[in-house]
Amino acid sequence: MPYAHDAVRAVVWREDALDLLDQRLLPAVERYRRLASVTEVAQAIRDMVVRGAPAIGIAAAYGVVLAARARYAEDPKRWRRTIGSDLAALAAARPTAVNLFWALRRMERAIDRSSGNPAVDLLSEARTIHEEDIAANRRMGQLGAALLGERGAVLTHCNTGSLATGGYGTALGVIREGYAAGLIERVYADETRPWLQGARLTAWELVRDGIPVTLLADGAAAALMREGRVRWTIVGADRVAANGDVANKIGTYHLAVAARYHGVRFMVVAPSSTVDMNLAGGADIPIEQRAAEELLTLGGQPIAAAGVDVWNPSFDVTPAALVDVLVTERGVVRAPDGEKMAWLMAEI
Amino acid sequence: MPYAHDAVRAVVWREDALDLLDQRLLPAVERYRRLASVTEVAQAIRDMVVRGAPAIGIAAAYGVVLAARARYAEDPKRWRRTIGSDLAALAAARPTAVNLFWALRRMERAIDRSSGNPAVDLLSEARTIHEEDIAANRRMGQLGAALLGERGAVLTHCNTGSLATGGYGTALGVIREGYAAGLIERVYADETRPWLQGARLTAWELVRDGIPVTLLADGAAAALMREGRVRWTIVGADRVAANGDVANKIGTYHLAVAARYHGVRFMVVAPSSTVDMNLAGGADIPIEQRAAEELLTLGGQPIAAAGVDVWNPSFDVTPAALVDVLVTERGVVRAPDGEKMAWLMAEI
Repeated sequence: MPYAHDAVRAVVWREDALDLLDQRLLPAVERYRRLASVTEVAQAIRDMVVRGAPAIGIAAAYGVVLAARARYAEDPKRWRRTIGSDLAALAAARPTAVNLFWALRRMERAIDRSSGNPAVDLLSEARTIHEEDIAANRRMGQLGAALLGERGAVLTHCNTGSLATGGYGTALGVIREGYAAGLIERVYADETRPWLQGARLTAWELVRDGIPVTLLADGAAAALMREGRVRWTIVGADRVAANGDVANKIGTYHLAVAARYHGVRFMVVAPSSTVDMNLAGGADIPIEQRAAEELLTLGGQPIAAAGVDVWNPSFDVTPAALVDVLVTERGVVRAPDGEKMAWLMAEI
Repeated sequence: MPYAHDAVRAVVWREDALDLLDQRLLPAVERYRRLASVTEVAQAIRDMVVRGAPAIGIAAAYGVVLAARARYAEDPKRWRRTIGSDLAALAAARPTAVNLFWALRRMERAIDRSSGNPAVDLLSEARTIHEEDIAANRRMGQLGAALLGERGAVLTHCNTGSLATGGYGTALGVIREGYAAGLIERVYADETRPWLQGARLTAWELVRDGIPVTLLADGAAAALMREGRVRWTIVGADRVAANGDVANKIGTYHLAVAARYHGVRFMVVAPSSTVDMNLAGGADIPIEQRAAEELLTLGGQPIAAAGVDVWNPSFDVTPAALVDVLVTERGVVRAPDGEKMAWLMAEI
């Protein structure tokens, strides 16, 4: 184990049901929700009980296991047809993170391969997806940390840690590895409005790990860079297009613009399951608009004037030209473009 | 009256005491706090019952009236000496907005000029400061609106309206005037973490005025610009240095960087009382660090992980090179620099 403090798991399969650490309640309450049906899993993804592109994909894979079990029990002859609506419900839960569709395609192929009661085979495939994600995180952590160069502080956005993945983390995996190697002295974490993933989740993970972490308002990041406090900005991704454009949590693009302006390097860390070679560029990535309430209320209390309109895209797109390096478990791509992405993603 | 809907006043002198609209409670509660002593005024400025550089200066001027009345009643011979500690307490209330020190210097000169009971003369001077600020806002509104060009949407940050000034507003004055002239179709308002001046105050003022306003997370502004939705970013200032560098609410600098990157024009609107010709550049402007609680809690409830460090500068500095135009009541300065600022501020 290169790093010990990664025990928290957001997605846990236990005794024939799926336990999700309810990320809406963190850090105040650590409570797992036990989901025994695919309908509950789709709802939990939509409501952000679980969030983070890789974790969404893994949860959906386990959701397919629950669906297959129920559909097979209903009708062992027709379950491959009746499960179609369950797969569609999972696919409709959230639109931007491509890992969801990637995981569903893998599960569909496992469905096609299965014979008799599919429960064991599909659970095996879901577990494989989960384990491969953790392994990919470890590998990306090593590859990304090797790029950091001299010791310094880094900035991150949203949550890309154990909570957002199968375990360990994408950007936060690089940060964990970099800290363990003595290359990172402090992490600056954007609070990440409106959902406060930075304040609630990233800060929580890093405090647990004993990694020095400083919280700042999202709007303060450019001033932080101007003061020369950070050498790298390290973020995750929800979808990477074939030309290297990156969709990630709203606010990421602003960091990319500010990083380029200040000569701060910009690293995107995402497993190859986040790459969507079917989309030519970032303009083709569907961007989820979330409810106005995320900006109008907090903890049920109003925090904005009544009657105001709201623009609340959950993600933005950073053009490949602003990405200094993309780290995947398949390897590192400097200054990504279409040719390099095709080479990275070519089947071996 | 060029514009009718500007009835709200944050700072009101009424029957020998100062009424401040408590901006910590808006928009949920509209409640004035009645302050009868200079100590209460200094505390109210520190606690942000009143905020916004011009409004802070005006409140402090009325605070001096309260101080002079009390010190003169105490000892009509020595009041000019004993009031010194009151002036010092007001000056220490907040460090960045230079309007506070500017207003105190004007009141000190009025103290020097006064003879006998100073109450009437000082109240007259405070009222003059207040009325001049409103007149300056009106003038800036006209000058700024004249620069807008073709009809479109604009982005603003923090609150620079009636609540932040003697009345009407600086950046929001330009926006009000531009909307009345049919040049502005919609205002995008950053929510402005951590104090949410945009969500709570700017949205409240604009909804009252019937001006279309859309709220967004601070981190979303760059994505908004990338979509081509805004033609101008219009902000206020807490201090402008002799070279044209601008200190304003944290998050302003990030907007300036993003605006330049996207070809969105960047306008700063501030009365000449905000210009500090004694400071060579932005690096000399003292930046207030506010309490960690502003990021750790909201409405008394924790919103971040316990144990996290916090970086909470209340302001940042935008270099003059990123300012397309500075609008003051003395005139408009395009691409401000030291020479133009000296010319603008030369005594007539």
